[in-house]
Amino acid sequence: MNYRMMGKFISRILIVEAIFMVPALLISVFHEESEAVSGFLTSMVITVATALLLYLLCRKAKKGFYAREGLVCVGASWIVMSLLGCLPFYFSGEIPGFVDAMFETVSGFTTTGASILQEVEPLSMGNLYWRSFTHWLGGMGVLVFVLAIGRGREKSDGYTMHLLRAESPGPKVEKLVPKMKDSAKILYFIYVFLTILNVVFLLIGGMPLFDAVCTAYGTAGTGGFGIKNDSIAGYSPYLQNVCTVFMLLFGVNFSCYYMLAIRQVKNVFQDEELRFYLGTALASILLIVWNVRGLYGSLGETFRHAAFQVASIMTTTGFATTDFDLWPSFSRAILLGLMIVGACAGSTGGGFKCGRTLLLIKSLRRNVRQILHPQKVQVVRVNGQMVTERVLDNTNAYLAAYAFIIVFSFIVISIDGFSPMTNFSAVLACFNNIGPGLESVGPTCNFGDYSVLSKALLIVDMLAGRLEIFPILILFSRSTWSGR
Amino acid sequence: MNYRMMGKFISRILIVEAIFMVPALLISVFHEESEAVSGFLTSMVITVATALLLYLLCRKAKKGFYAREGLVCVGASWIVMSLLGCLPFYFSGEIPGFVDAMFETVSGFTTTGASILQEVEPLSMGNLYWRSFTHWLGGMGVLVFVLAIGRGREKSDGYTMHLLRAESPGPKVEKLVPKMKDSAKILYFIYVFLTILNVVFLLIGGMPLFDAVCTAYGTAGTGGFGIKNDSIAGYSPYLQNVCTVFMLLFGVNFSCYYMLAIRQVKNVFQDEELRFYLGTALASILLIVWNVRGLYGSLGETFRHAAFQVASIMTTTGFATTDFDLWPSFSRAILLGLMIVGACAGSTGGGFKCGRTLLLIKSLRRNVRQILHPQKVQVVRVNGQMVTERVLDNTNAYLAAYAFIIVFSFIVISIDGFSPMTNFSAVLACFNNIGPGLESVGPTCNFGDYSVLSKALLIVDMLAGRLEIFPILILFSRSTWSGR
Repeated sequence: MNYRMMGKFISRILIVEAIFMVPALLISVFHEESEAVSGFLTSMVITVATALLLYLLCRKAKKGFYAREGLVCVGASWIVMSLLGCLPFYFSGEIPGFVDAMFETVSGFTTTGASILQEVEPLSMGNLYWRSFTHWLGGMGVLVFVLAIGRGREKSDGYTMHLLRAESPGPKVEKLVPKMKDSAKILYFIYVFLTILNVVFLLIGGMPLFDAVCTAYGTAGTGGFGIKNDSIAGYSPYLQNVCTVFMLLFGVNFSCYYMLAIRQVKNVFQDEELRFYLGTALASILLIVWNVRGLYGSLGETFRHAAFQVASIMTTTGFATTDFDLWPSFSRAILLGLMIVGACAGSTGGGFKCGRTLLLIKSLRRNVRQILHPQKVQVVRVNGQMVTERVLDNTNAYLAAYAFIIVFSFIVISIDGFSPMTNFSAVLACFNNIGPGLESVGPTCNFGDYSVLSKALLIVDMLAGRLEIFPILILFSRSTWSGR
Repeated sequence: MNYRMMGKFISRILIVEAIFMVPALLISVFHEESEAVSGFLTSMVITVATALLLYLLCRKAKKGFYAREGLVCVGASWIVMSLLGCLPFYFSGEIPGFVDAMFETVSGFTTTGASILQEVEPLSMGNLYWRSFTHWLGGMGVLVFVLAIGRGREKSDGYTMHLLRAESPGPKVEKLVPKMKDSAKILYFIYVFLTILNVVFLLIGGMPLFDAVCTAYGTAGTGGFGIKNDSIAGYSPYLQNVCTVFMLLFGVNFSCYYMLAIRQVKNVFQDEELRFYLGTALASILLIVWNVRGLYGSLGETFRHAAFQVASIMTTTGFATTDFDLWPSFSRAILLGLMIVGACAGSTGGGFKCGRTLLLIKSLRRNVRQILHPQKVQVVRVNGQMVTERVLDNTNAYLAAYAFIIVFSFIVISIDGFSPMTNFSAVLACFNNIGPGLESVGPTCNFGDYSVLSKALLIVDMLAGRLEIFPILILFSRSTWSGR
């Protein structure tokens, strides 16, 4: 294992992280939040010191960086990044428990949006900003960012590819353009552009600048941390609708936007995953509107709440405009289903991903056809292209790992004695990076009452969900650490 | 599709079914239950008439019977068998609704044990016997029975194999002996032997003969229909322990018993699935004993209840000696986990099966190793033998189908408005052929309040669970019915 190369890379990530703390620090200085200011300064010093130490230790890195190194490096980066990213909350005293601060930060970076805080409004402006910003950074991936801005001294595209592949969501990683590094740049360009557009639309609706920026961060990363206790419920219907539209937009595979930019409009509209995603969202909205009819004043209001909650859960954002835990069972069941399906591969959203669900459906159909006609060779096609057995195999392994983690986590956190649905939805909400679940972890509640053991496990689940399981899973595998 | 051959085969099954109604009829005659007697007579006449009609229509069957025919034939047989098997309940007026009678019968044949009856004690003795007997018949499989007693006029072993394969549980079907027909005979011999042994042990404990026979039917088929309102709770601790042991025995792969009989004792104790099964059961019992300590008088009593409930849920029997819905969350979570894992492949138990779970774990480990060492060819071994990619592929497809059916059923039955945990556990309990779930379908409750739509869906789930999904799934596939 090439530990030095990994250490060097992680040191770069930490420097970037420390730099990104500057805006939050400035906000705290501006609002004269003395404890937050000293919290940020202490955190930045520790982060930079750690980065320098790592750099000095790992300066002389050998060559050789393979899939294994890529996965371990991504898993380790995210853990280190969260350990240091939680310091501002901890040192400012705004989240006194370290595990709680870590939970909040991992929830931020993984764009989960699950919180241990009963109220967010007492937080300082600096920490509120930092909390929302972790979503934005984690949404597209901090490694992708470092690679995009890197000076490209590493000649080998393989190095970049192993890292990108490990951090990017979806059953297979496509290069938009021949060079991985350029792909990373394009992705971030689209990301920044859409985020700014989101801020502009929110400002037009009269939202204050600070609120607009933080809300856009939470939307863009499909995270869900709000800066109000009642999430988005207090904003105007126009602002809620803007959020609905942008949540849905950030749940789309970013390669669709690239195709739009290079005028391959037809390809976008024929994309099977996009159709599946939008079709499922629309069907869910209509079913919920039918199911909750009568709960709200008008059909328009019903539609607004249904669309917002569907977009929020399916894209795994986790904002709320209404307490959907009070909806009838059928609507809650649909939301639970959407929690699992999740957003498109290659978006900032989490969950199992529409693309994988589609692959599983097609692969299952293939199996049925194969039973019926054993003599014919059956292939699976998506968007007209044959899917390799390797990709299908990985998708199946992903489902197995996914199921095991859910069952295991569900049983372990049940020790705390909450209701089965609380525990089940807590695992789904964390592992799929959504945020709120049902019952005691519903949209008006929080994860604060879980024990330290359960919080630690949910932290691992959030990381496993965001990094698509394997970078975290192999950290626990004996064969990763044995041999060479 | 060779409809005539299928029709001929189904006609034989129906004749067997009508003959098996005779003991129940005699019991009703003996107890002078006039309505039940006329119910059984009417049902037998209709069943025999249907069989004769089918035989006359399908007499001149062509040759050619392939995997497709095998699957469709098994699916169709079970549906027809249930449609006619529910007539005694319906015509006697003891279960007035046809869908309810069908639910109860499918629950019987599939060895689920989920009931729509609030109380079972008001049923006539004849119908109580028939209800329990459906478990016994469905446990080992009625087709297996027909094949075992068949005169073997069909020379081709392929015909028998396609049918057996479609009805037998487990990731792959092994022949015990070269001829499938002989394997079927051996399986039924073991089944009858163990059932008689079970009756004897129950009689020794002072259980009345009728109770002993019915309880043994429910245990052997891992069904769970009892003849008392409080299931097994009213019997003595000795009798409860006998049930625990026999439930566990019937959850073991029957080929283990065959190996024991031919003195391959070493192979049995090295069987990985058996170790996994017993290890999981033991670990679950110990964890539950720890978790529910203090709920019962003594450690012995705690152990007895924990062991009984674990054996009952894991083997998917569904008997109860205590209301486990009142247990703490952790114990209930363990039971939910066991519901999914289920018993061994090749046993009368349901669920996902220990063998499949083991295969998935091994296949997942293989995938992790493959990521770490992409250049090496990695294989999966069970009991020292290499597992083919075909079997792994089918296991993965099974998991995908399994997950889809659970999510889909959960959402649809939520329309009735019960709590999410009621609905989720109802689907798990029916699909895994267990019987009782949690909350409103817990061990002291029943499925009677669900709507007709939900009951119909749960009927399909029970059949899909018992027949391991594909024989039912392909009935809904367009390509089964199109072309030749």
